[in-house]
Amino acid sequence: MGAADAQKAAPCVALLSEVLDMQYLAEAFRQTCPDIDLRLGADLGRLDDIDVGVCWFPPHRRLAQLPNLKLVQSLAAGIDHLLADPALPRHLPLCRVVDTNMAAGMKAYVTWAVVEQQRRMRAYVERSAASLWEEQPFENPRRHRVGIAGLGHLGMACAAALASIGYPVRGWSRSPKTELPDRVTGFHGAGQLDEFLSGCDTLVCLLPLTPQTRGFLNAALFAKLPRGAHLINVGRGDHLVEADLLPALNAGQLSAATLDALSQEPLPAGHPFWGDPRILITPHIATRTDRLVIAQQTLANLALLQRGQRPPHQVDLERGY
Amino acid sequence: MGAADAQKAAPCVALLSEVLDMQYLAEAFRQTCPDIDLRLGADLGRLDDIDVGVCWFPPHRRLAQLPNLKLVQSLAAGIDHLLADPALPRHLPLCRVVDTNMAAGMKAYVTWAVVEQQRRMRAYVERSAASLWEEQPFENPRRHRVGIAGLGHLGMACAAALASIGYPVRGWSRSPKTELPDRVTGFHGAGQLDEFLSGCDTLVCLLPLTPQTRGFLNAALFAKLPRGAHLINVGRGDHLVEADLLPALNAGQLSAATLDALSQEPLPAGHPFWGDPRILITPHIATRTDRLVIAQQTLANLALLQRGQRPPHQVDLERGY
Repeated sequence: MGAADAQKAAPCVALLSEVLDMQYLAEAFRQTCPDIDLRLGADLGRLDDIDVGVCWFPPHRRLAQLPNLKLVQSLAAGIDHLLADPALPRHLPLCRVVDTNMAAGMKAYVTWAVVEQQRRMRAYVERSAASLWEEQPFENPRRHRVGIAGLGHLGMACAAALASIGYPVRGWSRSPKTELPDRVTGFHGAGQLDEFLSGCDTLVCLLPLTPQTRGFLNAALFAKLPRGAHLINVGRGDHLVEADLLPALNAGQLSAATLDALSQEPLPAGHPFWGDPRILITPHIATRTDRLVIAQQTLANLALLQRGQRPPHQVDLERGY
Repeated sequence: MGAADAQKAAPCVALLSEVLDMQYLAEAFRQTCPDIDLRLGADLGRLDDIDVGVCWFPPHRRLAQLPNLKLVQSLAAGIDHLLADPALPRHLPLCRVVDTNMAAGMKAYVTWAVVEQQRRMRAYVERSAASLWEEQPFENPRRHRVGIAGLGHLGMACAAALASIGYPVRGWSRSPKTELPDRVTGFHGAGQLDEFLSGCDTLVCLLPLTPQTRGFLNAALFAKLPRGAHLINVGRGDHLVEADLLPALNAGQLSAATLDALSQEPLPAGHPFWGDPRILITPHIATRTDRLVIAQQTLANLALLQRGQRPPHQVDLERGY
């Protein structure tokens, strides 16, 4: 079948990842489009059939081998895993998934992580298991300041949820935000970063990963936080300079770290973060994009492009998100 | 000094509890009123001096011995600990503390407890300690229904916080509520209780303790919840029929219980709840009233009464809250 005919037939979608078994998405795509031509695994069949590459850390140079590709679709909100491909076809439309339900998972995780440390809930869990009725010092959430670095869709959502509990919340973003949630104070740009950091008893990183934000969480930044701050990284592993974390914990500058994203995933056995009681590692589970939402947005994006329209979540590659 | 003169002098306040060392409140009262006449401990001095009894499970019949008492002040939102006194002077004004900051502690605790179970966070904490990168099944908060029994100040606040995260929230109260938080569905009265319960994947008890609500959490109620529901009791210990809990857990009708209030506190050693991995016991710490707020409201209430005015948080003893 030639490229001209393919546009009229069912779409041909390749599921491309070097780190995930993409089979988990197949059913959602078939449910959304029963006669879809799905390709996955090592053998993708005739490469010129493929209209769309749905990607999560795709094999490098794979997308460049698809001559009739019309859309590069990230299966998540982030696109850094695509930009890592040195042969990414940058002339093609690149879309990310924006799943409003995804914010719920992130809000639940971040809220839990803030309270877990702030209210010393782990101590209570341990005492309950040991049959001990033993109070921990109480600090009202109203006296614990939470800062969110990154005020995109997820950052805004987390700021609103934490403010709803009663935490004084501040947010920092590259450029000023006009519409902040109630009771959230905004900071922006390099000029206001230090002032922002000085009031973060907990710092939540929800930045996009760009060349500017890589290594954002480093020793110099930790030094600007209040002593004993709690770091929550739900951005990307490469936001954190891993070598700077244990020294900051050992010095007491940080009291704890909750890391849902690591530079190398799974975190390798023997890594010094494992087993450190001050560090909680979770396997990149803060939230998940709904499979059906991935399938539906991918096929809707393709249909829009085929009609000459711009999909709503197409990425501006200059800006990086 | 006679009773007539006492009104012009500094107030005389007795701190009365059979279960707490009330010394922890002394500084807050002295800070609020430096020349206060504070009485606490076994020897209260001349009983006819005392204007106010600030109470938390006061010794039975103690209040009735104070001839010039003008105000019975609970140091918390609940008054059941006062109603337990068979000689409570019911003709006197009885006030509870309403601390808007107290809601923040409760919201943080309840939100944490909901997420802890719903997102299987304890499994992640355990795996992190064991150096295991191992994903648990993901269920979006949008598909987990949380019910709040009791829509007073704290119930409303928790409903709003959970809805802000994305949980579908329903609330139940004795009488209909006109102003519910956004995205919270209201149920009321005995007639809508079963329908309410049928949609509670997590049930949070924040009812006041009254003769009608004592034993509210019992086997018949558990049977009306969705199978595998999580019970969170942040009301009073006596809301729960303790003997009904383990059978419901053993049968799988409940999957977990988070109990911050117990009939007997501290929970006695050897109690069957201790050490059960499905039950989390916390030592009545979900929230705490700010000490300064207790002192300030107590003295403001006394001043209002002495001017013949009704304090804002005086309790209607017929209704019980």
